Amino acid sequence: MRQRVISSLVGLLLLAVVYLFLDTLVLNIVIGAIGVIAVLELLSAVKCSKYRGLSVLCVAISVTIPFAQETAVRRIMPQLMFFYIGVFFLILLKDHQKLRVEQASMMFFFSLFVPIFFACAVFIRNRFGPVIGGFYLLWALGSAWLSDTGAYFAGRAFGKHKLAPLISPKKTVEGAVGGVITSTVFMLLFALLFDLGMNAVGTPVRMNYLWIALFTPFFSIGGMLGDLSASVIKRQYGVKDFGNIMPGHGGVLDRFDSVLFTLPSVFIIVEYVSVTAFL
Amino acid sequence: MRQRVISSLVGLLLLAVVYLFLDTLVLNIVIGAIGVIAVLELLSAVKCSKYRGLSVLCVAISVTIPFAQETAVRRIMPQLMFFYIGVFFLILLKDHQKLRVEQASMMFFFSLFVPIFFACAVFIRNRFGPVIGGFYLLWALGSAWLSDTGAYFAGRAFGKHKLAPLISPKKTVEGAVGGVITSTVFMLLFALLFDLGMNAVGTPVRMNYLWIALFTPFFSIGGMLGDLSASVIKRQYGVKDFGNIMPGHGGVLDRFDSVLFTLPSVFIIVEYVSVTAFL
Repeated sequence: MRQRVISSLVGLLLLAVVYLFLDTLVLNIVIGAIGVIAVLELLSAVKCSKYRGLSVLCVAISVTIPFAQETAVRRIMPQLMFFYIGVFFLILLKDHQKLRVEQASMMFFFSLFVPIFFACAVFIRNRFGPVIGGFYLLWALGSAWLSDTGAYFAGRAFGKHKLAPLISPKKTVEGAVGGVITSTVFMLLFALLFDLGMNAVGTPVRMNYLWIALFTPFFSIGGMLGDLSASVIKRQYGVKDFGNIMPGHGGVLDRFDSVLFTLPSVFIIVEYVSVTAFL
Repeated sequence: MRQRVISSLVGLLLLAVVYLFLDTLVLNIVIGAIGVIAVLELLSAVKCSKYRGLSVLCVAISVTIPFAQETAVRRIMPQLMFFYIGVFFLILLKDHQKLRVEQASMMFFFSLFVPIFFACAVFIRNRFGPVIGGFYLLWALGSAWLSDTGAYFAGRAFGKHKLAPLISPKKTVEGAVGGVITSTVFMLLFALLFDLGMNAVGTPVRMNYLWIALFTPFFSIGGMLGDLSASVIKRQYGVKDFGNIMPGHGGVLDRFDSVLFTLPSVFIIVEYVSVTAFL
């Protein structure tokens, strides 16, 4: 437990540093690094790291995606993706005797959708700037992590009915409900703090608390689906954790599996619904 | 052989009809239909058709992609893709006991990249209009099919050295060279005809024959790589043909596997190099 708390503090410290440089390429670089580590963890979990050539290609794709909207990369993005797909098929042809099409497809699929989901953090920042965008990012992180924590304690206190016994035997329906409530209550509080804080520094914002109360439960459930999806992968390949980069928490994916789903959820919603904006 | 020729003529007739309506949604619809059939053939070849829910999702994605640039669809494209990915993970969670992650990933991967590659036909038309775009489309089809035919006859006449004995034992290096030469020569002739024809009807074009001579060999080789990639899939899953929708030719994918690679190749190149344009 002590190790777990220390890891959390180190993680939050890193998060604070990124937050300070939210309006710079630091965010793209950090998201790129998280994406690469997550993809490598996934490839290792599904026993595909041994395909060296394809793994290198997966890393190249993961590194590219968080920079997809930067002017220099944006212009050559279609060409880059075309090149990557071409290399993919050349590797498949070269290694066709040992590399199965389904493994190769899975590797390409992972190295597309995991980095794209993480890169939603960059896309949100690009679209809304570091202040409003920063709030949205913390909404995504908060919905996921406050759910996890709330579900853990609510499950321990009231847990009776198993949520998905075959996928994740410790999760309970009561825990899930507790997670949804916890994250919604704390996100409303956080929104209030942000609102008051922005007012105090002289740049007031309009804050729609109804949208926060309405969408946080959905993001919370989305995070749980991400968590369960990651568990399905671990279970099918007989892996306990994706890694051990954060002692006590496991790999990057073990900590970010729920965030992986809340980031795109927030990105899609705030495109339609103006939750907060400068007055 | 007779059956094969009749099938070809029917195919060319259909192609001519599409060409007449090239500037309408007929192209999108036909490309959508080809994409759906190709994806279903692929899913059946890799023994994944039995996963009904996911197959329906794959069809939905395949149908959507050729309309991605149409105003009504374009606006909701990110939301649609997000919805599809959400459904993908819900199905994975629901069927996690029988559906392997690698099979699910492969199905999603196929239903993305096959329709996107085919949809390049629509994107070329949208970008360059029916006349110039139509020429580029015939460049893609011609590079692929003239290669196939040239390689067949050159291989029969001069074939000595196997090209890829484990993947496609009948292909020879001599055939491949013959295919490249045949497609290049015929595409130059076709470009000349197009040039003269446009002049004759009073809407002259500028035609850069050097680019035609330079890029057709690449498209020809790209088509062969598509053909070989399809063969790897068939070989790994012990399938002879992808289908029998075109008697004597096999399935849609057996005929379009090389086109699948020349279409995006042409799309990427003509974005950079102005091969032909109205004067």
